[in-house]
Amino acid sequence: MNLCDLTTPALVVDEAAMERNLSTMSSHRPGARLRPHVKAHKTTELARRQHTHGHRGFTVATVREVVGMAEAGLGDDLLLANEVLDMRRLRAVVEDGARVTVAVDSEPVVRAAVEGGVLEVLIDVNVGLPRCGVAPDGAGALADLCRSLGLDVRGVMGYEGHLMLLADPSDRLRQTEQCMELLLRAHADVGGDVISGGGTGTWISNTWVTELQAGSYVLMDSAYAAIPDVTFEQALTVLTTIVSVNTAGWAVADAGLKAFGMDHGNPTVPGADVWFCSDEHTVFAMRDGAPLPAVGERIQMVPAHVDPTCALHEQMYLVDPHGVVRETWPVDLRGW
Amino acid sequence: MNLCDLTTPALVVDEAAMERNLSTMSSHRPGARLRPHVKAHKTTELARRQHTHGHRGFTVATVREVVGMAEAGLGDDLLLANEVLDMRRLRAVVEDGARVTVAVDSEPVVRAAVEGGVLEVLIDVNVGLPRCGVAPDGAGALADLCRSLGLDVRGVMGYEGHLMLLADPSDRLRQTEQCMELLLRAHADVGGDVISGGGTGTWISNTWVTELQAGSYVLMDSAYAAIPDVTFEQALTVLTTIVSVNTAGWAVADAGLKAFGMDHGNPTVPGADVWFCSDEHTVFAMRDGAPLPAVGERIQMVPAHVDPTCALHEQMYLVDPHGVVRETWPVDLRGW
Repeated sequence: MNLCDLTTPALVVDEAAMERNLSTMSSHRPGARLRPHVKAHKTTELARRQHTHGHRGFTVATVREVVGMAEAGLGDDLLLANEVLDMRRLRAVVEDGARVTVAVDSEPVVRAAVEGGVLEVLIDVNVGLPRCGVAPDGAGALADLCRSLGLDVRGVMGYEGHLMLLADPSDRLRQTEQCMELLLRAHADVGGDVISGGGTGTWISNTWVTELQAGSYVLMDSAYAAIPDVTFEQALTVLTTIVSVNTAGWAVADAGLKAFGMDHGNPTVPGADVWFCSDEHTVFAMRDGAPLPAVGERIQMVPAHVDPTCALHEQMYLVDPHGVVRETWPVDLRGW
Repeated sequence: MNLCDLTTPALVVDEAAMERNLSTMSSHRPGARLRPHVKAHKTTELARRQHTHGHRGFTVATVREVVGMAEAGLGDDLLLANEVLDMRRLRAVVEDGARVTVAVDSEPVVRAAVEGGVLEVLIDVNVGLPRCGVAPDGAGALADLCRSLGLDVRGVMGYEGHLMLLADPSDRLRQTEQCMELLLRAHADVGGDVISGGGTGTWISNTWVTELQAGSYVLMDSAYAAIPDVTFEQALTVLTTIVSVNTAGWAVADAGLKAFGMDHGNPTVPGADVWFCSDEHTVFAMRDGAPLPAVGERIQMVPAHVDPTCALHEQMYLVDPHGVVRETWPVDLRGW
């Protein structure tokens, strides 16, 4: 099967670029120093590649991702790095032998973990992103509560998500240090071996965490590609077909709002200005007088945000440099 | 089963509001004067309700939607209102007895229709939205080409999509008239019984089409709700659980970029200002000093754009005024 045989739109992965990204990251953050975030791709077969590169622990964002990773035999050490109230489905996963650690930032979530049969937690600390996490000076008390209820507290996590797309590396480094000072202060009160945090945007600068929670690095998107020290290659594209061309100066590809996560803006067409997306279309004009493609031509577009893009597709296709489809991977961790 | 039993995030439909929307539209555009657009909800069971309200013909945007609607027994008169190059899968649908009409705007698409075993077409006319459609003065020649290749030309379609969210009704009416003049001019050259176009935003103002292609009206979203003469009720929400609350003044719900189409902006939390969404979270603060919800509370959020929101969910739940889940409908027309 070749690219030209695929029904479009189709999620396409340049396997060689993906493997180089995996190697680059595992050289810099080998083994347990990286806890790859599965939410970026929602694909157990891709997680298996990350496992092959030496990372046996994973970060996930949903109960569905915990269950699916465990079912795929990738449950050595799963961190649900998110507050969840409904953990009923986790009991069977734990009883079947998967290691499941959940993030907690309040008493109701701690009690939900106990009721869900979870044995281990990380104290989720707010390090500046206005989202989840207990205030740093409340972390110790929450750890005490956890231990009093029989939970093992493995350490802390804190996600400096508001810094990931800061363009200036020195500014990002300075602010990351401030965030991680808060996390280390909380860790001093909490104890445990784990200091978890960071992401693709701070893959170099965050030298304080014991494990980095990066996910986007493996496939990448145009938002991260704009960051100078995020040197991973664009491995993910959406294959599209040109379905209409207007001689007034634009072309229409058959992928739109249902094929691309849009929160970071429009997808990119190489050499073109994208005008807008609608449900099943992207309209674009060529730059610098380049000729428009013809109806029936296929072009590969680059998503602006990898995570919600993957969540819209049923499968991803791994291709070699000749456009041969080597593997078809179900995006099997979608939904909740 | 009740709302409180659902795993969140969950797509919830207020059945009574949906039924009122169906009745309002079918009173104004009875029977074949409405060709409901299935892309808005991608759910054959919802299409079946539209069929019950008297609409036997449907508009779809993808080959997958054609195939799924025909398989569901809703193939009396399906219009694929979109240019498609790969129509191989349509042959079996037509041979099995479904009536399939496709939009065409160029010779390659016409030839793809012939090769795909399609028998009937509409000439897709560009009426101002810079997307698909032949120029009005080229419509007659394209119809001649279709007929010379043995296709039955049923008429024309033209979508004034750029006018749907124009806030001023009189401006929208004036511009709709200009667009429809172009469509009628093309129709004079093309012939046939069908003049298809329009949408929820022009459900009253577009008096020129023989059939309206509205889809959003049945479930609605916050973008359409802001239009004064689009008087349908908000029937669709996303049920979420509050997973974290910060005493500094914000709360976090467990639905984000993977639960909401984001191209029209953030979803709405009643009585609150939404700060941002991330993959699995929406962060918001209450307005007017209202108290924050508690961890574990459930709130219903309103999507900004119905179509890409539905495409992110595996099922929708129909609820009655007491929160009892009366039906669970698979969103079975996702993908391509």
